[in-house]
Amino acid sequence: MPMPPPQTFEIDFEPIGKRVEVASHAILLEAAQEAGIGLLSSCGGLGNCGQCRVTILEGAVSPPTGDEEFILSEVELHSGQRLACSTQIQSNVKVYIPNSSLITAQRLQLKGDSSDLPLDPVICACDIDVPAPTLHDQRSDLERIADTLAQTHQRPGAVAEPAVVRQISTVARQHNWRITAFLRDNEIIGLAPPGTRPVGMAVDLGTTKIAAYLLDLATGQELAAGGGLNPQIGYGEDVISRLAYTRRHQTGGETLADLIRRKLDTLLAELVQHAGVTREQVADVCIVGNTAMTHLLLELPVHQLTTAPYVAATGAAVDIKARAIGLTTAPGAYVHLLPCIGGFVGADHVAMILASRLDQAEHAVLGIDIGTNTEIALAKPGQAFLASASCASGPAFEGAHISDGMRAAAGAIEAVKLTETGVQLKTVDDVPAIGLCGSGIVDAVAELRRRDLLNQRGRFNRDNSRVRSGRHGLEFLLAPASQSGSSRDVVITQHDVNEIQLAKAAIRAGLEALLKATNTAPKEVKEVIIAGAFGSYLNLKSAIDIGMFPPLPEARFKQVGNAAGVGAKLALLSRAVRTRARQLAANADYIELTTFPKFNRLFALSMLFPAEASSAAEKPIAKAQGGADENNR
Amino acid sequence: MPMPPPQTFEIDFEPIGKRVEVASHAILLEAAQEAGIGLLSSCGGLGNCGQCRVTILEGAVSPPTGDEEFILSEVELHSGQRLACSTQIQSNVKVYIPNSSLITAQRLQLKGDSSDLPLDPVICACDIDVPAPTLHDQRSDLERIADTLAQTHQRPGAVAEPAVVRQISTVARQHNWRITAFLRDNEIIGLAPPGTRPVGMAVDLGTTKIAAYLLDLATGQELAAGGGLNPQIGYGEDVISRLAYTRRHQTGGETLADLIRRKLDTLLAELVQHAGVTREQVADVCIVGNTAMTHLLLELPVHQLTTAPYVAATGAAVDIKARAIGLTTAPGAYVHLLPCIGGFVGADHVAMILASRLDQAEHAVLGIDIGTNTEIALAKPGQAFLASASCASGPAFEGAHISDGMRAAAGAIEAVKLTETGVQLKTVDDVPAIGLCGSGIVDAVAELRRRDLLNQRGRFNRDNSRVRSGRHGLEFLLAPASQSGSSRDVVITQHDVNEIQLAKAAIRAGLEALLKATNTAPKEVKEVIIAGAFGSYLNLKSAIDIGMFPPLPEARFKQVGNAAGVGAKLALLSRAVRTRARQLAANADYIELTTFPKFNRLFALSMLFPAEASSAAEKPIAKAQGGADENNR
Repeated sequence: MPMPPPQTFEIDFEPIGKRVEVASHAILLEAAQEAGIGLLSSCGGLGNCGQCRVTILEGAVSPPTGDEEFILSEVELHSGQRLACSTQIQSNVKVYIPNSSLITAQRLQLKGDSSDLPLDPVICACDIDVPAPTLHDQRSDLERIADTLAQTHQRPGAVAEPAVVRQISTVARQHNWRITAFLRDNEIIGLAPPGTRPVGMAVDLGTTKIAAYLLDLATGQELAAGGGLNPQIGYGEDVISRLAYTRRHQTGGETLADLIRRKLDTLLAELVQHAGVTREQVADVCIVGNTAMTHLLLELPVHQLTTAPYVAATGAAVDIKARAIGLTTAPGAYVHLLPCIGGFVGADHVAMILASRLDQAEHAVLGIDIGTNTEIALAKPGQAFLASASCASGPAFEGAHISDGMRAAAGAIEAVKLTETGVQLKTVDDVPAIGLCGSGIVDAVAELRRRDLLNQRGRFNRDNSRVRSGRHGLEFLLAPASQSGSSRDVVITQHDVNEIQLAKAAIRAGLEALLKATNTAPKEVKEVIIAGAFGSYLNLKSAIDIGMFPPLPEARFKQVGNAAGVGAKLALLSRAVRTRARQLAANADYIELTTFPKFNRLFALSMLFPAEASSAAEKPIAKAQGGADENNR
Repeated sequence: MPMPPPQTFEIDFEPIGKRVEVASHAILLEAAQEAGIGLLSSCGGLGNCGQCRVTILEGAVSPPTGDEEFILSEVELHSGQRLACSTQIQSNVKVYIPNSSLITAQRLQLKGDSSDLPLDPVICACDIDVPAPTLHDQRSDLERIADTLAQTHQRPGAVAEPAVVRQISTVARQHNWRITAFLRDNEIIGLAPPGTRPVGMAVDLGTTKIAAYLLDLATGQELAAGGGLNPQIGYGEDVISRLAYTRRHQTGGETLADLIRRKLDTLLAELVQHAGVTREQVADVCIVGNTAMTHLLLELPVHQLTTAPYVAATGAAVDIKARAIGLTTAPGAYVHLLPCIGGFVGADHVAMILASRLDQAEHAVLGIDIGTNTEIALAKPGQAFLASASCASGPAFEGAHISDGMRAAAGAIEAVKLTETGVQLKTVDDVPAIGLCGSGIVDAVAELRRRDLLNQRGRFNRDNSRVRSGRHGLEFLLAPASQSGSSRDVVITQHDVNEIQLAKAAIRAGLEALLKATNTAPKEVKEVIIAGAFGSYLNLKSAIDIGMFPPLPEARFKQVGNAAGVGAKLALLSRAVRTRARQLAANADYIELTTFPKFNRLFALSMLFPAEASSAAEKPIAKAQGGADENNR
């Protein structure tokens, strides 16, 4: 008699050497994710980004799908290459995962312009000397602490929730009733040995990257900084793919929340260890992120974020117990999430506004935070006006949807200069080029345009001998296989140029709409603040030349780095800043671009490259030769 | 080669027929508890109460301990009888559990004097009609609800925590944005279909019994009532045994908290089903209990409750999210726990004071809640005085430590009359007697004293022919084996009488101390409120005759039933009552009896029976014959 088929199969992931047991017919990508193996998957497992390539070494799997036959070459398919998202397990299998399919470590931007952090923390540490209980003084543990706080620190009416009371009885006795109480208004959120300083964590929770900082709440001093990739990236590189994942899987929201919560707690552990403090000292946390990220973190419903009219479940500032989102801190510590302005203008944007003081500007200022969604704020103080818009600029600036696109990791081209006959490249870590990161793509397109290799509509000039025909149409060779780090030609294709046009047009059209909506002439804008990692590596001249930004004097632009992270730190350290955040979020106007009059026409016009770009490029190479420094990517 | 011994053994519990796998060398009592089999164990597994008797039918176990050889007769030991708490499993075993060792269902007292409940609930239900989001109105879900509450209900600034926001987006859309919001001050704690009424649960959480009530928060109407045994009883019948359990087992606090939380959630499920409402309608919960019970429920530290100076971790009123203690309710609903007065004067006592309005009394009133610990409050309004004390009266009135003691279950003797030659008994459910419950014991002792079968010091009169010699000294036969329900003689022994003397002396001495401390002559006391189940079944005359209470006119005594439960209901329905509770707890004086001057002398004097009791008993039988009604036990 034939044996019944087994209910589970084993997957052996090579070269990692990890073995996992999965249900029969499991999808390889999901199995890898559940095993903690971060496979790239910018489409969120829909089968069309082609990033989760693996090779089946042994065992039976489902036949290739139409998508796979489209994306993978016959040779690749024949050699066992598959997309993990489209492959179903049908026996025990051995799978090879190439490094190129793994989410790898990248440089993260932790710095920002964080001069003069105000110090007005929500947490106050009170050293107290509490009379011990006796048969003649049987007040409860909490009551005697509260009475002492009232008598010696003028902090009457102190309360504590059970989670904190749980700690009180032990800690107070361990230290003979000489203790430090961490107070948040009249709530005791933790107890520590006498003289202990409270610390706090500020987090900029990005779709791709997370930056976290540990600060001394008494002095404002930064004790440690760290960061990492958002682990949700394995479930979709962009926001929409991740939200789609939660729709396709009933427990998807829980899975994604759990992932990011664990990651934040791990980051906290690292910071705490690095700073030489204890978890019990962590008395406050402030997190900023876009609306989708904060919704996923709080496990809020996100369906309404994905369909018109794209509204948040809540945009208000949130104070939630740290333990409720899996952070191990002082037992009663809270996490503060800054408010957001709209479904696509999140707390990170509010943090950027706080950090760059747009809400306190004395002249018209634009604040731009470039990402998959680019948020723009315009402050016009004369009219007490703060308007925000969000542009769907897409992930092209992060290297996605670009044939040789990649993130700013080693070997990424970050700056490009064309000479009369050749190409000068600057790569991250100065190793042979293997692809282009965002600043390199912008630079390359600007140079191609300056050299008239592209026309105003973004078409390659077929007649130029440097433009060649590639597998997917016209292309420009940046690094030949013989010099590249991947043994393949690194090129920029017609399709890549069009992707950049779409992305820069989204930003420019958003800017124009915001200016029009607020009745502001471009020249009125005295300052343009460019925030974010990509924005701070961007060659401003190139960005202006391709028409991403209006042609204002370069001196008006200010690249401030991770302003969202700075805003998170400001809000961590200051109650007044939190109040400012609430006020600006409540008072800001949100301009919905999809309903803005004639937005489509604005967008179409913005697709064009400026006419003057090529004429301004008489001697672009000589002028800009020194420009490819560390900060221009 | 010999086989290695297996790591686990199987226990087959008969006649229940339950099989469980346990670690080798598991203790039988713990295995039964973990299997959900409620074995009596008033000593908490210390091996000295003798209640967890079982018979080993098959298999190898550890040899009998010294305790077991003391408690069990040779015949019993020979027949395989053992104490489950002292027996270690050494092979697969089959165990017989007699009914008498099982925690059985008992009648619970749910009623109390609950006339005119005030209606001033913390929860307010607002029916709202919210404009749906559009591309031109992209306010977040929470914001549009908050705005509507401000505009149409004058409730500005409504907030909601993430757990509630999680519900909002779904419920609001399901009902086309016509919804009812449950508000607690400015916090939205839940959303429901339009027109839904909020309900609340009030709980009296006793050491032995739990009484729970479901009330309509809009009308105050009682929708359902239910109750059950506190499942922690399997880990010790009295408070001290249970607290000791948490010291002996590292996760003991968690185990006991988990048990009671599950039980409360089960009770809530029953009430909700009975009343035909949904869990989402449960918008508020109010729980009262003694300090140990509320500490165990909240999983607070209890070590400091067990050693001098016996202080609570916190005595303040607690508002905690219902979900934090495992109750499924409206997502943001709170549980309110009333404050306590001292380590041994808990929220249940505060609830009794609220229900009997001691804090608003216009003359001197005593409130007495008799239990394992007996709490006494004395109100003296002229001096704005409310003092409380707690007496260690022990579990004798619940039938523990009494040779034929039992709880008020079927067959329990609840009233006793001695005639010239015989005995008249009243039993619960009028079935043949198998033991004595508290009111029966008090009655029996009072009668023995009236008939001079006991002297003033509580010694049996050897010379009286009705007093016989038993296995453990002198005893009085209440029901011969031929007439009893257990085929054994039901007796009251010299030891039983002494236990009752200890118990009543503890109460009387506490009363006297409280009167002395407040400089109150007994005759000043115009009212004595007797609360609690035992108290309401008690024959008042018998209680006075044995000296438990001072000899005041019977008309001044008022047996009010489960006043703690009524107090819980009052606090559930009224914000003002909660404020009263806070005030009275803060202002009440707590008299610690262990440090009260000459308390030991007071106690020793109170051990004696009053001299007048026997002289007052000229014709006691005729006078009291009609007294053994339903309420006199």
